[in-house]
Amino acid sequence: MPNWLLPENIADVLPSEARKIEDLRRVFLDHFRLYGYELVMPPLLEYIESLLTGAGQDMDLRTFKLVDQVSGRTMGLRADMTTQVARIDAHLLNRASVTRLCYAGNVLHTKPSGLHATREPIQIGAEIYGHAGLEADAEIQELVLASLALAGIREVRLDLCHVGVLRAILDLDSEAKKQENVLFSLLEAKDLPSIDIVSRELLPEVRAALMLLPTLYGDVSILKIAREKLPAVNGIINALDELEYLASLVGPAQVTIDLADLRGYHYHSGVMFSAFVHGLPNAVARGGRYDHVGEAFGRARPATGFSLDLRELARLMPVAERKDAIRAPWSRDVGLRQKIAELRNEGEVVIQNFPGHENEQDEFDCNRVVVFDGDQWILQNVG
Amino acid sequence: MPNWLLPENIADVLPSEARKIEDLRRVFLDHFRLYGYELVMPPLLEYIESLLTGAGQDMDLRTFKLVDQVSGRTMGLRADMTTQVARIDAHLLNRASVTRLCYAGNVLHTKPSGLHATREPIQIGAEIYGHAGLEADAEIQELVLASLALAGIREVRLDLCHVGVLRAILDLDSEAKKQENVLFSLLEAKDLPSIDIVSRELLPEVRAALMLLPTLYGDVSILKIAREKLPAVNGIINALDELEYLASLVGPAQVTIDLADLRGYHYHSGVMFSAFVHGLPNAVARGGRYDHVGEAFGRARPATGFSLDLRELARLMPVAERKDAIRAPWSRDVGLRQKIAELRNEGEVVIQNFPGHENEQDEFDCNRVVVFDGDQWILQNVG
Repeated sequence: MPNWLLPENIADVLPSEARKIEDLRRVFLDHFRLYGYELVMPPLLEYIESLLTGAGQDMDLRTFKLVDQVSGRTMGLRADMTTQVARIDAHLLNRASVTRLCYAGNVLHTKPSGLHATREPIQIGAEIYGHAGLEADAEIQELVLASLALAGIREVRLDLCHVGVLRAILDLDSEAKKQENVLFSLLEAKDLPSIDIVSRELLPEVRAALMLLPTLYGDVSILKIAREKLPAVNGIINALDELEYLASLVGPAQVTIDLADLRGYHYHSGVMFSAFVHGLPNAVARGGRYDHVGEAFGRARPATGFSLDLRELARLMPVAERKDAIRAPWSRDVGLRQKIAELRNEGEVVIQNFPGHENEQDEFDCNRVVVFDGDQWILQNVG
Repeated sequence: MPNWLLPENIADVLPSEARKIEDLRRVFLDHFRLYGYELVMPPLLEYIESLLTGAGQDMDLRTFKLVDQVSGRTMGLRADMTTQVARIDAHLLNRASVTRLCYAGNVLHTKPSGLHATREPIQIGAEIYGHAGLEADAEIQELVLASLALAGIREVRLDLCHVGVLRAILDLDSEAKKQENVLFSLLEAKDLPSIDIVSRELLPEVRAALMLLPTLYGDVSILKIAREKLPAVNGIINALDELEYLASLVGPAQVTIDLADLRGYHYHSGVMFSAFVHGLPNAVARGGRYDHVGEAFGRARPATGFSLDLRELARLMPVAERKDAIRAPWSRDVGLRQKIAELRNEGEVVIQNFPGHENEQDEFDCNRVVVFDGDQWILQNVG
């Protein structure tokens, strides 16, 4: 097998793509900063207890493990950065009031999430700790939409759901509660025939609600139907109120509701959302509330946030245009060196040709050259 | 053991430090771009054969290994990115002419290189492929100094050495050649008594040269002494010529010569250099020529480059000043939302207070507030 072959679903990022990713990274981090989010950089490796605290089996299986030669303990390569950032909020910063943090970094997965999915996403995200109210969720959703708009993606649909709906339904029947995992999987798959079978022994109103959930998706009018048809218990009413409030802030035209879109159900504690872009089947960004995340670090703080994969998003961007550049010869001549330094100071890309060689660049279009006109070094157009 | 405890020599980067690192990262990548360097992003994980090709045992021991569940093969977590970038040049880009590439990313080490050294440096660097002449080395050295100057570090000393000197000495005596590894280690440690013992059976002129090497350090006048006292063979003369030429380009005032500073001896093929900053015992940046690096990927191209650890460099920077910011209340009021959007568009950081909470930020100094004056939302200084 040749030495240059990379593992499956692992790839180099070549110049034009790398430039798009780098540009997006800066646009997002700069935008987060305008809202007061502070950048943190958690490590790639942590002890497994810390990295996987509160995480489900799914995350455990996605996490590469290795032995720390220094301590002999098992470490994991981060497959997700949100727990790490929660640890930083809970333990390191240890602030009493609202904290806004953001991050960007590579994560690694043992197995790809799909046939063509990368095993090394570049995760970027923002989190708010310390405020349990919907204002924090609203800010995060605004941030997602504003960030995507800055990246040139304007036709974004925000899909809202709420873990409180299913939780409240299951709370009505202890038998249903016992089958939470099974029911959750069936709901996620929208597998109505199996839900029909599994729910036979449950209370009729619970069964009816479970059968109804997978059909409750569409525009915000779904919330009205849900109010009419789902059990009128506090948990459900509160969840629907929250969804309605957030939908009104985002603007109903941009919102869809899907009460059975439960990805992240075990992890989240309130409103969840996914941002969809025209033409892409998978969400470009996901987020929501997960108030219990800090518990394992000794401080359960309200938390809400979002993240996305910059690599995936960069694919949606048009190929970056080649940047105008200047070609210059190589010489020790002081005048030439000064001329080149001046041009670079003005922000021009100046590429020096080494003796006997041409340069080759994907990214730059050398449409000017520096030449000596017998008296001084001047800029000349090519062609 | 508490869940928030990180492995030894692994640390989170908190906001003020993260900001410094992010700023430096951008300054460097932008500066590299002005010279025509194109950004690439190699993966964190590769098959071990590819990652460690041509690397010595030292690099092998520093590299974390894990099993790829998809292929069953052993992968390594990159401990250095230069081989990866050489692979990209040799195989993926496959250009015939000069290629300039740059990169920035985290690398991981099984063991720290010193008591307080991180096991997760943030490596940033630039490489030129395809030109064997000293012009490429000169550009890389210029780039190191210019980058450090942009980071505010002006008093940099460039320590030059050349693997050709020791190679040419050892080539004079096949017995010496056999003991290359031992002699190399002793020279690196400047262990004259042991060199004395080990070299007893070698040719007298080889022995004298080996004993002399550790003393050949100082300003550029050392080159003159080296010419007089070292064997006058082609390999040595060429190496000293190259050092003299590069020293003249950098400027003798900024250069020191250390002919026994052989770190990277096995890896490099010509001139090597280290950049030192006042007050720091270790080099802040290292680089040099390593023309054989592409061989394992089927294309041995001339190569020269440098890299440094952003984390280490950021420690030298003064603490970033807190950025002026604006505090605003949270409300659905359209006028307020517009005012905030306008301020952010102007580049102002606007942090909204959620009801019932104060915000807390390390990085921002909220010296203004947005208030309603009965008629409109206005900006007010904080007393």
